Amino acid sequence: MTARAGEEALGFDPGDRSFAGVAAIGRIRSAWRAGDCPRNLRQARERGGGHARLEIDAPYRPGLAGLAEGQWIWLLAWYGDRRRDLIVQAPAHAEGPRGTFALRSPVRPNPVALQLVRITTLDAETGRLEIDATDAFDGTPLLDIKPWLDTVDRPPGP
Amino acid sequence: MTARAGEEALGFDPGDRSFAGVAAIGRIRSAWRAGDCPRNLRQARERGGGHARLEIDAPYRPGLAGLAEGQWIWLLAWYGDRRRDLIVQAPAHAEGPRGTFALRSPVRPNPVALQLVRITTLDAETGRLEIDATDAFDGTPLLDIKPWLDTVDRPPGP
Repeated sequence: MTARAGEEALGFDPGDRSFAGVAAIGRIRSAWRAGDCPRNLRQARERGGGHARLEIDAPYRPGLAGLAEGQWIWLLAWYGDRRRDLIVQAPAHAEGPRGTFALRSPVRPNPVALQLVRITTLDAETGRLEIDATDAFDGTPLLDIKPWLDTVDRPPGP
Repeated sequence: MTARAGEEALGFDPGDRSFAGVAAIGRIRSAWRAGDCPRNLRQARERGGGHARLEIDAPYRPGLAGLAEGQWIWLLAWYGDRRRDLIVQAPAHAEGPRGTFALRSPVRPNPVALQLVRITTLDAETGRLEIDATDAFDGTPLLDIKPWLDTVDRPPGP
Protein backbone atom coordinates (compact mmCIF):
# COMPACT_ATOMS: atom_id res chain seq x y z
CA MET A 1 0.00 0.00 0.00
CA THR A 2 1.41 3.35 -1.02
CA ALA A 3 1.24 6.39 1.23
CA ARG A 4 1.52 10.10 0.59
CA ALA A 5 3.80 12.16 2.80
CA GLY A 6 2.37 12.55 6.29
CA GLU A 7 -0.11 9.73 6.00
CA GLU A 8 -0.42 7.20 8.84
CA ALA A 9 -1.80 3.68 8.82
CA LEU A 10 -3.24 1.76 11.78
CA GLY A 11 -1.09 -1.35 11.39
CA PHE A 12 -4.22 -3.53 11.28
CA ASP A 13 -7.42 -3.79 9.27
CA PRO A 14 -10.43 -2.66 11.32
CA GLY A 15 -12.47 -5.19 9.35
CA ASP A 16 -10.57 -7.90 11.22
CA ARG A 17 -11.84 -6.43 14.52
CA SER A 18 -15.54 -6.44 13.64
CA PHE A 19 -18.04 -6.90 16.46
CA ALA A 20 -21.19 -6.82 14.29
CA GLY A 21 -22.20 -7.11 10.66
CA VAL A 22 -24.07 -4.98 8.16
CA ALA A 23 -26.60 -6.19 5.57
CA ALA A 24 -27.51 -4.53 2.27
CA ILE A 25 -31.12 -3.30 2.07
CA GLY A 26 -30.56 -2.58 -1.63
CA ARG A 27 -28.18 -0.77 -3.91
CA ILE A 28 -27.42 2.70 -5.23
CA ARG A 29 -27.52 2.80 -9.02
CA SER A 30 -25.75 5.55 -10.90
CA ALA A 31 -23.91 6.52 -14.05
CA TRP A 32 -20.63 6.54 -12.12
CA ARG A 33 -18.06 3.79 -12.41
CA ALA A 34 -15.33 3.04 -9.89
CA GLY A 35 -12.41 5.33 -10.70
CA ASP A 36 -14.66 7.95 -12.31
CA CYS A 37 -16.82 9.00 -9.36
CA PRO A 38 -17.40 12.60 -8.37
CA ARG A 39 -15.36 13.51 -5.29
CA ASN A 40 -18.44 14.46 -3.29
CA LEU A 41 -22.14 15.19 -3.55
CA ARG A 42 -21.62 18.80 -4.53
CA GLN A 43 -19.43 17.78 -7.45
CA ALA A 44 -21.97 15.07 -8.32
CA ARG A 45 -24.69 17.72 -8.58
CA GLU A 46 -22.43 19.88 -10.74
CA ARG A 47 -22.02 16.87 -13.05
CA GLY A 48 -25.79 16.41 -13.36
CA GLY A 49 -26.45 14.04 -10.46
CA GLY A 50 -25.46 10.81 -12.18
CA HIS A 51 -28.96 9.46 -12.95
CA ALA A 52 -29.05 8.45 -9.32
CA ARG A 53 -31.59 5.95 -8.07
CA LEU A 54 -32.11 3.37 -5.36
CA GLU A 55 -33.21 -0.23 -5.72
CA ILE A 56 -34.57 -1.61 -2.46
CA ASP A 57 -34.66 -5.39 -2.05
CA ALA A 58 -38.12 -6.96 -1.76
CA PRO A 59 -38.18 -7.81 1.97
CA TYR A 60 -37.26 -4.23 2.90
CA ARG A 61 -39.78 -2.40 0.69
CA PRO A 62 -42.50 -2.13 3.38
CA GLY A 63 -39.99 0.06 5.24
CA LEU A 64 -40.52 2.81 2.65
CA ALA A 65 -44.09 3.51 3.80
CA GLY A 66 -44.35 7.09 4.97
CA LEU A 67 -41.63 8.50 2.72
CA ALA A 68 -42.75 10.96 0.05
CA GLU A 69 -41.54 12.47 -3.20
CA GLY A 70 -39.78 15.77 -2.57
CA GLN A 71 -38.56 14.67 0.86
CA TRP A 72 -34.91 14.96 1.93
CA ILE A 73 -33.41 11.74 3.23
CA TRP A 74 -30.11 10.47 4.56
CA LEU A 75 -28.48 7.57 2.78
CA LEU A 76 -26.00 5.39 4.61
CA ALA A 77 -23.98 3.36 2.12
CA TRP A 78 -20.99 1.04 2.31
CA TYR A 79 -17.94 2.30 0.39
CA GLY A 80 -16.14 -0.96 1.00
CA ASP A 81 -13.77 -1.06 -1.95
CA ARG A 82 -11.20 1.15 -0.24
CA ARG A 83 -8.63 0.45 2.47
CA ARG A 84 -9.84 0.94 6.04
CA ASP A 85 -6.53 1.39 7.83
CA LEU A 86 -5.57 4.96 6.95
CA ILE A 87 -5.99 7.13 10.05
CA VAL A 88 -4.15 10.28 8.85
CA GLN A 89 -4.61 11.22 5.21
CA ALA A 90 -3.22 13.75 2.77
CA PRO A 91 -5.99 14.28 0.21
CA ALA A 92 -4.94 16.03 -2.97
CA HIS A 93 -7.38 18.92 -2.35
CA ALA A 94 -6.34 19.58 1.28
CA GLU A 95 -3.37 21.50 2.62
CA GLY A 96 -1.32 18.96 4.46
CA PRO A 97 -2.32 15.76 6.25
CA ARG A 98 -5.44 15.58 8.42
CA GLY A 99 -7.03 13.00 10.66
CA THR A 100 -9.54 10.72 9.00
CA PHE A 101 -12.29 11.91 11.38
CA ALA A 102 -11.77 15.49 10.19
CA LEU A 103 -12.36 14.39 6.57
CA ARG A 104 -15.31 13.04 4.60
CA SER A 105 -13.03 10.73 2.62
CA PRO A 106 -14.51 7.27 1.90
CA VAL A 107 -11.26 5.86 3.26
CA ARG A 108 -12.05 5.30 6.98
CA PRO A 109 -12.15 2.51 9.59
CA ASN A 110 -15.88 1.95 8.95
CA PRO A 111 -16.57 3.04 5.36
CA VAL A 112 -20.14 4.18 5.94
CA ALA A 113 -20.82 7.15 3.66
CA LEU A 114 -23.46 9.71 4.59
CA GLN A 115 -25.39 11.58 1.89
CA LEU A 116 -28.30 13.98 2.09
CA VAL A 117 -30.41 13.58 -1.05
CA ARG A 118 -33.89 14.46 -2.26
CA ILE A 119 -36.43 11.89 -3.40
CA THR A 120 -37.67 12.86 -6.86
CA THR A 121 -39.81 9.78 -7.60
CA LEU A 122 -40.85 6.93 -5.33
CA ASP A 123 -42.45 3.58 -6.13
CA ALA A 124 -42.68 1.66 -2.86
CA GLU A 125 -44.12 -1.43 -4.55
CA THR A 126 -41.14 -1.98 -6.86
CA GLY A 127 -38.69 -0.50 -4.37
CA ARG A 128 -37.41 2.07 -6.86
CA LEU A 129 -36.61 5.63 -5.89
CA GLU A 130 -35.06 8.31 -8.03
CA ILE A 131 -32.93 10.80 -6.12
CA ASP A 132 -31.42 14.12 -7.14
CA ALA A 133 -27.78 12.99 -6.99
CA THR A 134 -25.23 10.57 -5.61
CA ASP A 135 -21.44 10.31 -5.58
CA ALA A 136 -21.61 6.51 -5.22
CA PHE A 137 -20.66 4.28 -8.09
CA ASP A 138 -23.18 1.93 -9.63
CA GLY A 139 -24.01 -1.02 -7.37
CA THR A 140 -22.87 0.45 -4.05
CA PRO A 141 -24.55 -1.42 -1.16
CA LEU A 142 -27.15 0.66 0.68
CA LEU A 143 -27.41 0.16 4.46
CA ASP A 144 -30.09 2.58 5.58
CA ILE A 145 -32.47 5.40 4.71
CA LYS A 146 -33.46 7.93 7.39
CA PRO A 147 -35.70 10.98 7.14
CA TRP A 148 -33.89 14.32 7.46
CA LEU A 149 -35.26 16.08 10.52
CA ASP A 150 -35.13 19.84 10.89
CA THR A 151 -35.12 19.59 14.70
CA VAL A 152 -31.89 17.62 15.10
CA ASP A 153 -30.05 17.53 11.76
CA ARG A 154 -28.68 21.04 11.60
CA PRO A 155 -26.76 23.26 13.95
CA PRO A 156 -28.96 25.83 15.68
CA GLY A 157 -28.95 29.34 14.23
CA PRO A 158 -29.43 30.76 10.74
CA MET B 1 -41.11 -10.96 20.12
CA THR B 2 -44.20 -8.87 20.74
CA ALA B 3 -45.66 -6.59 18.08
CA ARG B 4 -47.96 -3.60 18.25
CA ALA B 5 -50.92 -3.46 15.87
CA GLY B 6 -49.80 -2.82 12.30
CA GLU B 7 -46.18 -3.73 12.85
CA GLU B 8 -44.42 -6.02 10.37
CA ALA B 9 -41.31 -8.15 10.79
CA LEU B 10 -38.95 -9.33 8.08
CA GLY B 11 -39.02 -13.03 8.95
CA PHE B 12 -35.22 -13.07 9.25
CA ASP B 13 -32.50 -11.25 11.14
CA PRO B 14 -30.52 -8.93 8.82
CA GLY B 15 -27.52 -9.63 11.04
CA ASP B 16 -27.53 -13.15 9.61
CA ARG B 17 -27.14 -11.68 6.11
CA SER B 18 -24.09 -9.53 6.82
CA PHE B 19 -21.65 -8.90 4.00
CA ALA B 20 -19.15 -6.80 6.00
CA GLY B 21 -18.29 -6.01 9.60
CA VAL B 22 -18.01 -2.89 11.71
CA ALA B 23 -15.35 -2.14 14.33
CA ALA B 24 -15.64 0.17 17.34
CA ILE B 25 -13.32 3.19 17.23
CA GLY B 26 -14.33 3.99 20.82
CA ARG B 27 -17.41 4.47 22.94
CA ILE B 28 -20.01 7.07 23.81
CA ARG B 29 -20.15 7.71 27.54
CA SER B 30 -23.22 9.26 29.12
CA ALA B 31 -25.43 9.46 32.17
CA TRP B 32 -28.09 7.41 30.39
CA ARG B 33 -28.72 3.76 31.15
CA ALA B 34 -30.48 1.28 28.85
CA GLY B 35 -34.22 1.67 29.48
CA ASP B 36 -33.84 5.29 30.63
CA CYS B 37 -32.50 6.95 27.49
CA PRO B 38 -33.98 10.10 26.00
CA ARG B 39 -36.04 9.30 22.91
CA ASN B 40 -33.92 11.52 20.68
CA LEU B 41 -31.26 14.20 20.69
CA ARG B 42 -33.72 17.03 21.20
CA GLN B 43 -35.11 15.36 24.31
CA ALA B 44 -31.54 14.65 25.45
CA ARG B 45 -30.73 18.37 25.23
CA GLU B 46 -33.89 19.20 27.19
CA ARG B 47 -32.66 16.80 29.88
CA GLY B 48 -29.28 18.54 30.09
CA GLY B 49 -27.32 16.57 27.52
CA GLY B 50 -26.41 13.58 29.68
CA HIS B 51 -22.79 14.51 30.49
CA ALA B 52 -22.02 13.24 27.02
CA ARG B 53 -18.48 12.43 26.01
CA LEU B 54 -16.50 10.23 23.66
CA GLU B 55 -13.59 7.93 24.45
CA ILE B 56 -11.58 7.11 21.35
CA ASP B 57 -9.39 3.99 21.44
CA ALA B 58 -5.63 4.58 21.24
CA PRO B 59 -4.97 3.41 17.64
CA TYR B 60 -7.67 5.72 16.27
CA ARG B 61 -6.67 8.92 18.13
CA PRO B 62 -4.45 10.28 15.32
CA GLY B 63 -7.68 10.44 13.30
CA LEU B 64 -8.86 13.36 15.46
CA ALA B 65 -6.21 15.73 14.09
CA GLY B 66 -7.94 18.68 12.45
CA LEU B 67 -11.08 18.64 14.60
CA ALA B 68 -11.61 21.63 16.87
CA GLU B 69 -13.57 22.64 19.92
CA GLY B 70 -16.85 24.28 18.94
CA GLN B 71 -17.12 22.25 15.74
CA TRP B 72 -20.28 20.33 14.78
CA ILE B 73 -19.69 16.69 13.97
CA TRP B 74 -21.68 13.64 12.97
CA LEU B 75 -21.49 10.59 15.18
CA LEU B 76 -22.29 7.18 13.77
CA ALA B 77 -22.94 4.74 16.59
CA TRP B 78 -24.16 1.15 16.84
CA TYR B 79 -27.45 0.74 18.69
CA GLY B 80 -27.14 -3.02 18.59
CA ASP B 81 -29.17 -4.00 21.63
CA ARG B 82 -32.47 -3.84 19.74
CA ARG B 83 -34.11 -6.18 17.26
CA ARG B 84 -33.23 -5.61 13.60
CA ASP B 85 -36.16 -7.31 11.90
CA LEU B 86 -38.97 -4.77 12.33
CA ILE B 87 -39.69 -3.14 8.95
CA VAL B 88 -43.00 -1.43 9.79
CA GLN B 89 -43.29 0.11 13.25
CA ALA B 90 -45.96 1.74 15.39
CA PRO B 91 -44.05 4.03 17.75
CA ALA B 92 -46.02 5.34 20.72
CA HIS B 93 -45.54 8.96 19.60
CA ALA B 94 -46.63 8.45 15.97
CA GLU B 95 -50.11 8.22 14.49
CA GLY B 96 -50.35 4.73 13.10
CA PRO B 97 -47.67 2.43 11.72
CA ARG B 98 -44.87 3.71 9.47
CA GLY B 99 -42.05 2.16 7.53
CA THR B 100 -38.76 1.89 9.37
CA PHE B 101 -37.02 4.07 6.75
CA ALA B 102 -39.49 6.91 7.47
CA LEU B 103 -38.54 6.80 11.16
CA ARG B 104 -35.42 7.57 13.19
CA SER B 105 -36.13 4.67 15.55
CA PRO B 106 -33.01 2.75 16.67
CA VAL B 107 -34.88 -0.40 15.62
CA ARG B 108 -33.77 -0.92 12.00
CA PRO B 109 -32.02 -3.50 9.79
CA ASN B 110 -28.64 -1.82 10.33
CA PRO B 111 -28.80 -0.07 13.71
CA VAL B 112 -26.44 2.78 12.85
CA ALA B 113 -27.61 5.89 14.69
CA LEU B 114 -26.79 9.33 13.31
CA GLN B 115 -26.33 12.30 15.66
CA LEU B 116 -25.22 15.86 15.01
CA VAL B 117 -23.38 17.12 18.10
CA ARG B 118 -21.02 19.92 19.04
CA ILE B 119 -17.52 19.35 20.41
CA THR B 120 -17.17 21.30 23.66
CA THR B 121 -13.73 20.06 24.72
CA LEU B 122 -11.19 17.98 22.81
CA ASP B 123 -8.04 16.21 23.98
CA ALA B 124 -6.65 14.33 20.98
CA GLU B 125 -3.81 12.83 23.02
CA THR B 126 -6.07 11.01 25.49
CA GLY B 127 -8.84 10.54 22.93
CA ARG B 128 -11.43 12.28 25.10
CA LEU B 129 -14.02 14.64 23.70
CA GLU B 130 -16.88 16.27 25.52
CA ILE B 131 -19.96 16.89 23.38
CA ASP B 132 -23.09 18.92 24.03
CA ALA B 133 -25.47 15.97 24.17
CA THR B 134 -26.22 12.37 23.23
CA ASP B 135 -29.23 10.07 23.39
CA ALA B 136 -26.97 7.00 23.53
CA PHE B 137 -26.63 5.01 26.70
CA ASP B 138 -23.31 4.68 28.43
CA GLY B 139 -20.88 2.41 26.57
CA THR B 140 -22.51 2.54 23.12
CA PRO B 141 -19.95 1.55 20.44
CA LEU B 142 -18.86 4.46 18.24
CA LEU B 143 -18.22 3.69 14.55
CA ASP B 144 -17.28 7.01 13.01
CA ILE B 145 -16.90 10.76 13.40
CA LYS B 146 -17.37 13.02 10.38
CA PRO B 147 -17.20 16.80 10.13
CA TRP B 148 -20.54 18.51 9.44
CA LEU B 149 -20.24 20.31 6.10
CA ASP B 150 -22.41 23.28 5.25
CA THR B 151 -22.13 22.56 1.52
CA VAL B 152 -23.72 19.10 1.50
CA ASP B 153 -25.35 18.45 4.90
CA ARG B 154 -28.42 20.59 4.66
CA PRO B 155 -31.15 21.07 2.11
CA PRO B 156 -30.68 24.17 -0.02
CA GLY B 157 -32.67 27.24 0.96
CA PRO B 158 -33.20 29.09 4.22
